[in-house]
Amino acid sequence: MGDVYESVMELAKRRGFIWPTAECYGSVAGFIDYGPLGAMMKRRIENIWRDFFVIQEGYYEIESPVIGPEQVFIASGHVKGFVDKMFQCPHCREYFRADHAAEGAGIKNAAHMERSELEGALARTPCPACGTILGEVGIFDFNLMFQTGIGPGIQRRGYLRPETAQGMFTNFSRLLRFYRDRLPFGAVQIGKSFRNEISPRQGVIRLREFTQAEAEIFVHPAGKARHPYFYRYAEYRVPLLTIEHQIENMEPEAVAMDEAVKKGLVAHEYVAYYLALTHEILVRVGLSPEKIRFRQHMPDERAHYATDCWDVEFLSERFGWVEVVGIADRTDYDLKAHASESGTSFSVFLPLENPIRVKRRCLVPRMKLLGPLFKGKAKEIAEKIERMEPAEGEITLEIAGERIRIPPELYEIREEEVEVRGQEVIPHVVEPSYGIDRMLYAVLEHSYAEEVVEGETRRVLRLPPWVSPVQVAVLPLMPRDGLDEIAREIHGRLTLKKIVAEYDENGAIGRRYRRQDEIGTPFAITVDYETKDTGTVTLRERDSMKQVRIPLEGLEDLLDLLIKGEKMFSQLRS
Amino acid sequence: MGDVYESVMELAKRRGFIWPTAECYGSVAGFIDYGPLGAMMKRRIENIWRDFFVIQEGYYEIESPVIGPEQVFIASGHVKGFVDKMFQCPHCREYFRADHAAEGAGIKNAAHMERSELEGALARTPCPACGTILGEVGIFDFNLMFQTGIGPGIQRRGYLRPETAQGMFTNFSRLLRFYRDRLPFGAVQIGKSFRNEISPRQGVIRLREFTQAEAEIFVHPAGKARHPYFYRYAEYRVPLLTIEHQIENMEPEAVAMDEAVKKGLVAHEYVAYYLALTHEILVRVGLSPEKIRFRQHMPDERAHYATDCWDVEFLSERFGWVEVVGIADRTDYDLKAHASESGTSFSVFLPLENPIRVKRRCLVPRMKLLGPLFKGKAKEIAEKIERMEPAEGEITLEIAGERIRIPPELYEIREEEVEVRGQEVIPHVVEPSYGIDRMLYAVLEHSYAEEVVEGETRRVLRLPPWVSPVQVAVLPLMPRDGLDEIAREIHGRLTLKKIVAEYDENGAIGRRYRRQDEIGTPFAITVDYETKDTGTVTLRERDSMKQVRIPLEGLEDLLDLLIKGEKMFSQLRS
Repeated sequence: MGDVYESVMELAKRRGFIWPTAECYGSVAGFIDYGPLGAMMKRRIENIWRDFFVIQEGYYEIESPVIGPEQVFIASGHVKGFVDKMFQCPHCREYFRADHAAEGAGIKNAAHMERSELEGALARTPCPACGTILGEVGIFDFNLMFQTGIGPGIQRRGYLRPETAQGMFTNFSRLLRFYRDRLPFGAVQIGKSFRNEISPRQGVIRLREFTQAEAEIFVHPAGKARHPYFYRYAEYRVPLLTIEHQIENMEPEAVAMDEAVKKGLVAHEYVAYYLALTHEILVRVGLSPEKIRFRQHMPDERAHYATDCWDVEFLSERFGWVEVVGIADRTDYDLKAHASESGTSFSVFLPLENPIRVKRRCLVPRMKLLGPLFKGKAKEIAEKIERMEPAEGEITLEIAGERIRIPPELYEIREEEVEVRGQEVIPHVVEPSYGIDRMLYAVLEHSYAEEVVEGETRRVLRLPPWVSPVQVAVLPLMPRDGLDEIAREIHGRLTLKKIVAEYDENGAIGRRYRRQDEIGTPFAITVDYETKDTGTVTLRERDSMKQVRIPLEGLEDLLDLLIKGEKMFSQLRS
Repeated sequence: MGDVYESVMELAKRRGFIWPTAECYGSVAGFIDYGPLGAMMKRRIENIWRDFFVIQEGYYEIESPVIGPEQVFIASGHVKGFVDKMFQCPHCREYFRADHAAEGAGIKNAAHMERSELEGALARTPCPACGTILGEVGIFDFNLMFQTGIGPGIQRRGYLRPETAQGMFTNFSRLLRFYRDRLPFGAVQIGKSFRNEISPRQGVIRLREFTQAEAEIFVHPAGKARHPYFYRYAEYRVPLLTIEHQIENMEPEAVAMDEAVKKGLVAHEYVAYYLALTHEILVRVGLSPEKIRFRQHMPDERAHYATDCWDVEFLSERFGWVEVVGIADRTDYDLKAHASESGTSFSVFLPLENPIRVKRRCLVPRMKLLGPLFKGKAKEIAEKIERMEPAEGEITLEIAGERIRIPPELYEIREEEVEVRGQEVIPHVVEPSYGIDRMLYAVLEHSYAEEVVEGETRRVLRLPPWVSPVQVAVLPLMPRDGLDEIAREIHGRLTLKKIVAEYDENGAIGRRYRRQDEIGTPFAITVDYETKDTGTVTLRERDSMKQVRIPLEGLEDLLDLLIKGEKMFSQLRS
């Protein structure tokens, strides 16, 4: 069968799934176009994702712009930290990502090397492009965000977002109000993200412009241990490759989620819940269950703020295990960062059911002394003192830019009983983040098959019917004798039902079936000479290639059920 | 009622339709976020658009990147021509769009003035920001495309697309093959586009990042007069404001499309078909028919290549008539431009059913003379001569960079009979282009109402049920006595049916109805004390505020029909 990537991409190009961008201008690495069938399939995958996250989980989708002002990405850490080490070949002037080039030359552990160490190692290797031994190269940081300017003149710097997540964080306060100031809640977003990769060479796997589907679930830090609907997935088994499995060089192991939490393999129920939910989604869209694994991040690859992090990976014949989803407990890192950068509050006031009274030390200004001393400013100073954390000694205040010293005799420290009506909490964030383009490619690769049928190779995409771009083919056996008219009428009825049907009257019927097999059309209706007499057509299933005769009446309702998977073809009788 | 824009935007912000972008960082002019309800409503509008263009018309959607390489926009003319005249106030250093500033100061016809004339006119007007008389200002061109760099180093320049259309043009050859080399065919795209407006001050109306839905329909130039499905809209009446209406200062006039074509008000059936289709879509998503008009471009505002062009406008209380859709016959301008820039063919070879034989003059090289003269190059020269247009006199050729003169005695002109199997045609493009954000705002403004009910102001969004973000409210009369449990169960059943339902148990029932009215929820189900006894609930309609009792059984199917508009509330009996 050769390399399945080649076969899949050849098919994808020829039949209108994936096309090179701006092909007539030589295309651009890291960018792809979705053709008619690819765009349709992508939309179906996105809508299945919505069925889970928006409908089932009840997390509303929002839509924020892809261009963001610089401050957002200063806060998120991307301006400073979203960089790759790169170098330029001194001979052919081509640019390379340093760790990739080093690993390609057989240097181990390049991603964790210091700059000078890596420079030394690279010096003895040949340039990946021109083959000359590199010699002295200078490694420098390259920020992976696409930069642009907003407005004219002394431009406000903007970046194309490297992830959709920041839109949910910057909208946190409004989201919180939308959800009526209660935890937990979630918000999701499906949209374009951008990473200006140095020299992407892995086709659809490493894109500079790609589509993410991300959910940010805001949880009480003390509430992560218990997910309210954990029972749904408690017994659901997911193939885990934990830290220990990786250290011991073991194969992944299918573990039920309640067991995984109990044994401490997964940090808590919230992460476990989304591991299982993700597995369900991936299988639903058409990835092969035996080619999925959930790999836990090793402590040294995890972001410093994350407490538990999992890469969901699919197995590709060419690329090996490829990340398609990331699931992380990001703690309160993002909200704290935006709170600090923007100077606004990103916390939730959670009222207690029964307010409690607690003893508290506080500062009480001595107005009798303050008044004569500070006159008109005394009131403002007193208010500031009241709001300060109690501490002994002299206090320094600032009023309208002026620094004022308050010696200890101007206030007293008192112990008071105060009523506490609630607490301010900065929620933790659990984030499942999906790469839609990789999902789509994984489905294509996993569903692609070649098999010999009657001496000829049949290429078939075994897509789930609910993912196939074209859902039904409508084929008159011959394009005459009124068969074409009946077929067109069926096509019209299916269209009214919003079923995507393709009418095809060109060529031998066997060739037309193959054409549909190749794009994954799950069902084909053939109008033949019996149709006029009996009011029936044949219905062919792509995978089994079996056919049954079904009545014209109620045809569109039956197809609708078959496409949704609410009825199986094997249940039908002629 | 005050300014409806203020009221609508206040509601939109408070209830989660539209939020300022990156609000905690002071927001950014020209960018908005869609909150949970806005994003849901936007998706519904986009899907209605797809029902028409993808399902009804059968035009497949594609998806091309928002970042494009420079050549695409050189070909499209945007690099050179997509500019606004701007100036900087010499006093406060603020930037302005010159024609807008001039018109704001009462200068008529500013958009059509020459640079120096406009500079002169502006000199005597006050700065729109600081109020100082401007004096001498220099007007310069500002390109409205956001620019970025693709990859590191000597970057390949890229732009964020100012329209989605170019993606359909650059993919023309692949689309043509997808549609099996036949005309007409269409491709559509819904996605983000970007225009770096100089100083956008009109809220959601003038965005720097916005969503377009565009269709490019490729037609045989000789075939525009007849649209195959014109009968669908022949009698459909559309309020036209033609060139003549504008010259004569008349009101728009509702004209049937067949009449409009016959009278020459609209260029041909293809444009007329999409005028009517557009009217149907706008009314379907919820614009008020009496606040829509179709304004024909005056000859001097039309792009030089377009033969007929219409702005579809909606009436806004604050902004007046605002363009929401543009429909143009772009002729072969775009395909020719890309053919010339890329050096590839953008034509269609249309085979004739019966090849014809025609007489043709052609050049026949005299090999006996060419051979000795040009030796090894003779064959190549002969081939070039054969392919040339016949003309008398000396010919100049280029072979491998060398110019070669061929005197007339080296060839003869002969008349031959040749077989013509078809013709090469560059299709014309008819383009309906929709601004989704403006559509959404128009729907909000047109559906917004305030009315006094029982002495209180009721704010209501009279959205069509198929556009409302939340489709059903589920309300227990009291959050106890098991009413809440029944209500939650109903909520679950609706969710399984993929109906977006909101459960709400907080506050008096009247207040809860108002909360739903305000976000346009068309139906509310109330579980009361009769529910347990009779197995019925009340169903309230938002617009009439009438209630009927309906059985719990089959509830979700009934709601589904009501939401789709396939059943009317007024048909229900208690």
